[in-house]
Amino acid sequence: MTMEKTLWEYIQSVKDQSPLIHNITNYVVMNNTANALLAVGASPVMAHAKSEIKDMASIASAVLINIGTLDEYWSEAMLIAAKAAHTLNKPWVLDPVGAGATPYRNEILQKLLQYRPTVIRGNASEILALAKSNSSVTKGVDSIALSNEAVQAALDLVNDYGSIVCISGATDIILNDSGQIYFIKNGHPMMTKVTGLGCTASALTAAFIAVTENKTEATTAAMALLGIAGELAEKQSSGPGSLQMNLLDKLYAVTETEFSGYLKVAME
Amino acid sequence: MTMEKTLWEYIQSVKDQSPLIHNITNYVVMNNTANALLAVGASPVMAHAKSEIKDMASIASAVLINIGTLDEYWSEAMLIAAKAAHTLNKPWVLDPVGAGATPYRNEILQKLLQYRPTVIRGNASEILALAKSNSSVTKGVDSIALSNEAVQAALDLVNDYGSIVCISGATDIILNDSGQIYFIKNGHPMMTKVTGLGCTASALTAAFIAVTENKTEATTAAMALLGIAGELAEKQSSGPGSLQMNLLDKLYAVTETEFSGYLKVAME
Amino acid sequence: MTMEKTLWEYIQSVKDQSPLIHNITNYVVMNNTANALLAVGASPVMAHAKSEIKDMASIASAVLINIGTLDEYWSEAMLIAAKAAHTLNKPWVLDPVGAGATPYRNEILQKLLQYRPTVIRGNASEILALAKSNSSVTKGVDSIALSNEAVQAALDLVNDYGSIVCISGATDIILNDSGQIYFIKNGHPMMTKVTGLGCTASALTAAFIAVTENKTEATTAAMALLGIAGELAEKQSSGPGSLQMNLLDKLYAVTETEFSGYLKVAME
Repeated sequence: MTMEKTLWEYIQSVKDQSPLIHNITNYVVMNNTANALLAVGASPVMAHAKSEIKDMASIASAVLINIGTLDEYWSEAMLIAAKAAHTLNKPWVLDPVGAGATPYRNEILQKLLQYRPTVIRGNASEILALAKSNSSVTKGVDSIALSNEAVQAALDLVNDYGSIVCISGATDIILNDSGQIYFIKNGHPMMTKVTGLGCTASALTAAFIAVTENKTEATTAAMALLGIAGELAEKQSSGPGSLQMNLLDKLYAVTETEFSGYLKVAME
Repeated sequence: MTMEKTLWEYIQSVKDQSPLIHNITNYVVMNNTANALLAVGASPVMAHAKSEIKDMASIASAVLINIGTLDEYWSEAMLIAAKAAHTLNKPWVLDPVGAGATPYRNEILQKLLQYRPTVIRGNASEILALAKSNSSVTKGVDSIALSNEAVQAALDLVNDYGSIVCISGATDIILNDSGQIYFIKNGHPMMTKVTGLGCTASALTAAFIAVTENKTEATTAAMALLGIAGELAEKQSSGPGSLQMNLLDKLYAVTETEFSGYLKVAME
Repeated sequence: MTMEKTLWEYIQSVKDQSPLIHNITNYVVMNNTANALLAVGASPVMAHAKSEIKDMASIASAVLINIGTLDEYWSEAMLIAAKAAHTLNKPWVLDPVGAGATPYRNEILQKLLQYRPTVIRGNASEILALAKSNSSVTKGVDSIALSNEAVQAALDLVNDYGSIVCISGATDIILNDSGQIYFIKNGHPMMTKVTGLGCTASALTAAFIAVTENKTEATTAAMALLGIAGELAEKQSSGPGSLQMNLLDKLYAVTETEFSGYLKVAME
């Protein structure tokens, strides 16, 4: 496995450059998303007003769009932001929360895809629904073990939109249009009992692709960091409440030695 | 006191069936509500867009409507969701946060009541205001010691709408249209210093009535679980910050032995 | 240095009178803001519906307006609330989050200023942008070391609107139209890694000015309390996640001895 840089160097770049990340995300996770971005050294801003969204996107280093609690107003704002990011050549991440749950989500997601997200991150059922654009596969926002089909769906998205696609789950799978595939086996099952850690993953990814040329490796670094911080945090936690808190501490304090010792990444 | 099932069996049912709960709730508590639902084994979704609210309610096992930070748009969404739940025969919970604080809240609540909530949960002043539909009794969202009057108000709501009514407070009181009354003396005073634990109670209730026939016992189980988790959590807490966190851990990890040992429920 | 009352007496007044604080604040911080207000003994309500905002402001003891995640609807609500507070002679706090980041924020802030906030609290770059009403100085919502210029900007705001102005930072600086200046050197650098502690500061300030005549000293007490709670919390924290939690515990539990022992306030 050869990488341009070690994954730790990507973590260091975020700390060094402290990119401003413009988040248009859901109400459930805003606090934790902002805190996770601060913990890794990025600078978060949450803004969704149609009257300022282009201005905010233009001063940001990357944009995150997460449709978790979308509505008609927010969808318009998301489309303006995605268009701005696309036009200004800013990297942007799409988190298709609940793709497939309702026709409305699918409709908005298809419109967002036209602006060719730099990275798409979702669980297997969301990636599948996003590629198929139908509503038959998702039950809410939980992940389903559909890895093989999901990989095929991810490849379709890579081909159609040129996006890097990250399927998160027990093993995170990251694919790009150079035919590279990364597998990350970090993380802990209790992380699925904390709301919005997938959303955190997407936000961290936005921070990492904001400051680096190799977006695939940057995505891999972001996902590995979250997984490893989760594993370290779980050791000190009695349940999902303390895990949510300890995870922020670990995102902030994880050392290179810990990171390297825990890293389980493979490339194909 | 005879119950159809032990309260612990209701807790087990939620874990076993992992019902999807559709929440239309307030901004303040969304993160904690989602985490509490995950901790007890349910699957939360937060969605309020008029364009998808019927679709989302139709795939959910129960609906929660909490008016905490309502506005004109959200009120419409709540009414659509309540109507959908009523029409589809889905159990739904109404949390009348701040009932009586403003005429607007009272007006929306009266409209929501027409869809006959399966369960109404509020503190004494909210239940009183809901029944009287006047704005003279509430100071914001805090509970007032109005238990006796509140029981009468609850009975009026039971009679008018066929709802189970839960008055939460130092003693939780649960009434239904079979004339049963349950009293729960679990919980800890410090829980009133954590925002939104009443909202958590309502959300857990939605999860419990989603998977069981006997909705009164299910409501009792949900309220007892929250109270006991709060008592256990408080023993390890130095204040409301750690209590909020430890409560999630305990909702996740409480054992049958702990639950039975702490349970203080009586029936009339 | 002579004060009318000790700062601890202000802390005690909030606990004794438990003022209802009407918050129109941003999505990111609502949960923590509500919890911080509860921790110090105040009673928070979050409400933004145009249909009830005047009613809610009229039953509150003070109003907080924080523009963090403003949009066209919320801006209107904020203006109604500011006007109501001004008309009803209720103390109100303006938190100009992200002032200078976009023309839209500046436009709304200029309108809000017309209702003469009792207290304005922001970091140096926000105070500077608010006074200059231009968009050239802010990078998102982070503080910049612009203290001297910011003091001049704060004095302009004091003169133009009669407001007390608090510039928060490593040293908090509080100025009023009697020419008094307070300096507070409490707090800890890790507090900048927790999202929204500035917002917490503003909300606490609203609670403190709600119950006291001397608003400048009340503001000083609120800022000192937050700084000291932060210092105490940090000693028990492994990172920003645990700091956020421990801070709430300390706001709730700090003793007069701890407070007096840590207090670093000076007056000019």
